[in-house]
Amino acid sequence: MTAPDYGRSFALWRDACPGPWQAYTRHAFVQGLGDGSLPRAAFLNYLQQDYVFLIHFSRAWSLAVVKAGNLAEMQAASATVHALLHLEMPLHVGICEGEGITREALEATEEAPENLAYTRYVLESGYSGDFLDLLAAVAPCVLGYGEIGARLLAEGGETPYRNWIETYGGPEFQQLCRDTGALIDRAIADRLGPAPETLPRWQALAGRFATATRLEAAFWGLGRA
Amino acid sequence: MTAPDYGRSFALWRDACPGPWQAYTRHAFVQGLGDGSLPRAAFLNYLQQDYVFLIHFSRAWSLAVVKAGNLAEMQAASATVHALLHLEMPLHVGICEGEGITREALEATEEAPENLAYTRYVLESGYSGDFLDLLAAVAPCVLGYGEIGARLLAEGGETPYRNWIETYGGPEFQQLCRDTGALIDRAIADRLGPAPETLPRWQALAGRFATATRLEAAFWGLGRA
Amino acid sequence: MTAPDYGRSFALWRDACPGPWQAYTRHAFVQGLGDGSLPRAAFLNYLQQDYVFLIHFSRAWSLAVVKAGNLAEMQAASATVHALLHLEMPLHVGICEGEGITREALEATEEAPENLAYTRYVLESGYSGDFLDLLAAVAPCVLGYGEIGARLLAEGGETPYRNWIETYGGPEFQQLCRDTGALIDRAIADRLGPAPETLPRWQALAGRFATATRLEAAFWGLGRA
Amino acid sequence: MTAPDYGRSFALWRDACPGPWQAYTRHAFVQGLGDGSLPRAAFLNYLQQDYVFLIHFSRAWSLAVVKAGNLAEMQAASATVHALLHLEMPLHVGICEGEGITREALEATEEAPENLAYTRYVLESGYSGDFLDLLAAVAPCVLGYGEIGARLLAEGGETPYRNWIETYGGPEFQQLCRDTGALIDRAIADRLGPAPETLPRWQALAGRFATATRLEAAFWGLGRA
Repeated sequence: MTAPDYGRSFALWRDACPGPWQAYTRHAFVQGLGDGSLPRAAFLNYLQQDYVFLIHFSRAWSLAVVKAGNLAEMQAASATVHALLHLEMPLHVGICEGEGITREALEATEEAPENLAYTRYVLESGYSGDFLDLLAAVAPCVLGYGEIGARLLAEGGETPYRNWIETYGGPEFQQLCRDTGALIDRAIADRLGPAPETLPRWQALAGRFATATRLEAAFWGLGRA
Repeated sequence: MTAPDYGRSFALWRDACPGPWQAYTRHAFVQGLGDGSLPRAAFLNYLQQDYVFLIHFSRAWSLAVVKAGNLAEMQAASATVHALLHLEMPLHVGICEGEGITREALEATEEAPENLAYTRYVLESGYSGDFLDLLAAVAPCVLGYGEIGARLLAEGGETPYRNWIETYGGPEFQQLCRDTGALIDRAIADRLGPAPETLPRWQALAGRFATATRLEAAFWGLGRA
Repeated sequence: MTAPDYGRSFALWRDACPGPWQAYTRHAFVQGLGDGSLPRAAFLNYLQQDYVFLIHFSRAWSLAVVKAGNLAEMQAASATVHALLHLEMPLHVGICEGEGITREALEATEEAPENLAYTRYVLESGYSGDFLDLLAAVAPCVLGYGEIGARLLAEGGETPYRNWIETYGGPEFQQLCRDTGALIDRAIADRLGPAPETLPRWQALAGRFATATRLEAAFWGLGRA
Repeated sequence: MTAPDYGRSFALWRDACPGPWQAYTRHAFVQGLGDGSLPRAAFLNYLQQDYVFLIHFSRAWSLAVVKAGNLAEMQAASATVHALLHLEMPLHVGICEGEGITREALEATEEAPENLAYTRYVLESGYSGDFLDLLAAVAPCVLGYGEIGARLLAEGGETPYRNWIETYGGPEFQQLCRDTGALIDRAIADRLGPAPETLPRWQALAGRFATATRLEAAFWGLGRA
């Protein structure tokens, strides 16, 4: 299958760091989700870290509201925050409870270095840069999960991790990915005009995307323990 | 009538700056809302500036999500952002249209210095300080409007600004004020323990509240034009 | 005399807001400095507020170090911070003491609303935007003082405020202005390429400059009391 | 030898995370510096990463200037920034050149994940928290290097890394450590009063210190490559 279309900026940024992108989206952890070979303990460890991740990711999207340039950008980012905090977090807590991880255990999770590295890089990009820097740093997570989910769903492997795949490969998350890609393209056009890739600024954004992708790839590794 | 009860921190901060608090909540603009003597042009000018204000106020509450210390604080602040951006803003745009102020006029509003002063003070308090600094700076707005609304509603003056009074004096906004007061009290207890007013930190927070109150009082003055 | 040359971006931004720029650089306070008609009390009040201003201005330049894109930008901004905190502040305290304003009085200064408005606007521009937003917001202060100082020095009016004029019109501060203008031009070229004024981003920067100029003009007004 | 005295807060925070502190200050890399067993390649890799580290560490101390609560705190933090950018950075570049690592190579360094993790954690602590959060996050670096340097100097091992040891164990850096420890103690007293360790806030600060210590320990590991 061809990769899904999440807009122009994403396609260019991704193609500018093929090594890290491959390392991230074709990581052994990902392949193990798809063919079912991922050990349960690794998945549970991932779920637990993902709880902490979602908190910081919600903070990052809230920072996007603060740094937005107009009401439409604010509303788009705010809708994501609301969905993360009031829908996805309770859902995640429920899934973890189903796996025997209590809310208390989730809240007591010691954040793994790989988790710290990615989330703080994203937040610091947002604080130190502007709205575009923040979007370039969150993009590998949202759009990478979308690309992975779509691929694994199409592959249709026999796996106990079907739920995970259907969540990220399913129509609702795919629509979120297209919306996020469109938000990025429009935000760039509204600031950098019709030929952003000719500007030095573009390289900086592509660099943020590449670094965030490297850190996302490392994130899978925390499922080792 | 006695002032409504929005929690302990608010009561102490307010009582520590009686002059500015009086200047803010008993401003001629406020009295004119209550007895109907406020000129229409001043009210319309206020409405238009308030549109810009709501944008920056939503940004401030989003920053509160970023700076929150736990999930409950994040969810409380996020619910306020969502209500501001997806309910109050459309409502405000509708009211303005009813008054003949188009959306285009709203978006083209030149932000008054008094508006800039208050909103940027709040945001900068949040960026440079922590969650408590941010709450101390937003408190005079939320809780002051609640106190003014409750008083004007109880006074029951004959006025064309009844809608405004019923919005801020009504049960929904009064509940938001009690919730915000409780959020503040709990956030302080969770950080500074059971006797926060004995700490130097308390003076800094009371100082933020007093400065923000001074700037809120000046905000009414922008209705002059 | 023609205005001094502090680089291309400054010239374009200034020319894009002729009204506010005139209101700022030809303010009655400025004219009074030049011809000696400014009341002593207004000057002393200005000096005292300026102490608080310098603290927040130092913070703004420190934020520029944090948000810089490379070592050269960091070193340029850091040199300004160092000069402000370790040279200009002690000098300012000395001048105030010579005027009978003690250090205790300086530290107890209640910050005027116009002071809060400008400094928090600058800091919030830096926090919410990027390095360029911050530079566009500090530019009217540094470069406006340079332009005013150069003009008043050339006019050579009979005035008790000769020291002030020689400070800002003198070679050291004029060099700082040329360096700051060059820092801005280079930072813009390094991010937005050779034709930045064709990009939407340029309008946002010019807008920051114009708003900061309006707030600087209002700052002179605080000498009224 | 007993550990050097860098103040009360540091001693309490360190003693509250004995495992991570041991892992950091007794890391194999550290022992290898002391007895000369550290491979040259690992040291050179560390030096190169340290160049990038120093940039972000300078940014963190600049953020401390922005978030300081008074002029004395600003001047203390600013002096550190100035020393880092105008003295230590040129020195570091010189040392690297002596080792055959050109300035171009330094500037082209790809930042290691462990480097990203620690520096962005520190910066994000500062942005999202307040001055104390930032100090708690930088403390393990400054004071840990001081403790390591003092111990290795006292041990007097035969090693080619004697210069490194004399830098951090020497009187100038030891004085910086005592000054930094005093800055921390005073900043805490100025905000949290005479018994800060009885407040919930203290646990949050100790937690920041512990997390930063864990990330510092991981930093040594980047010398593996």
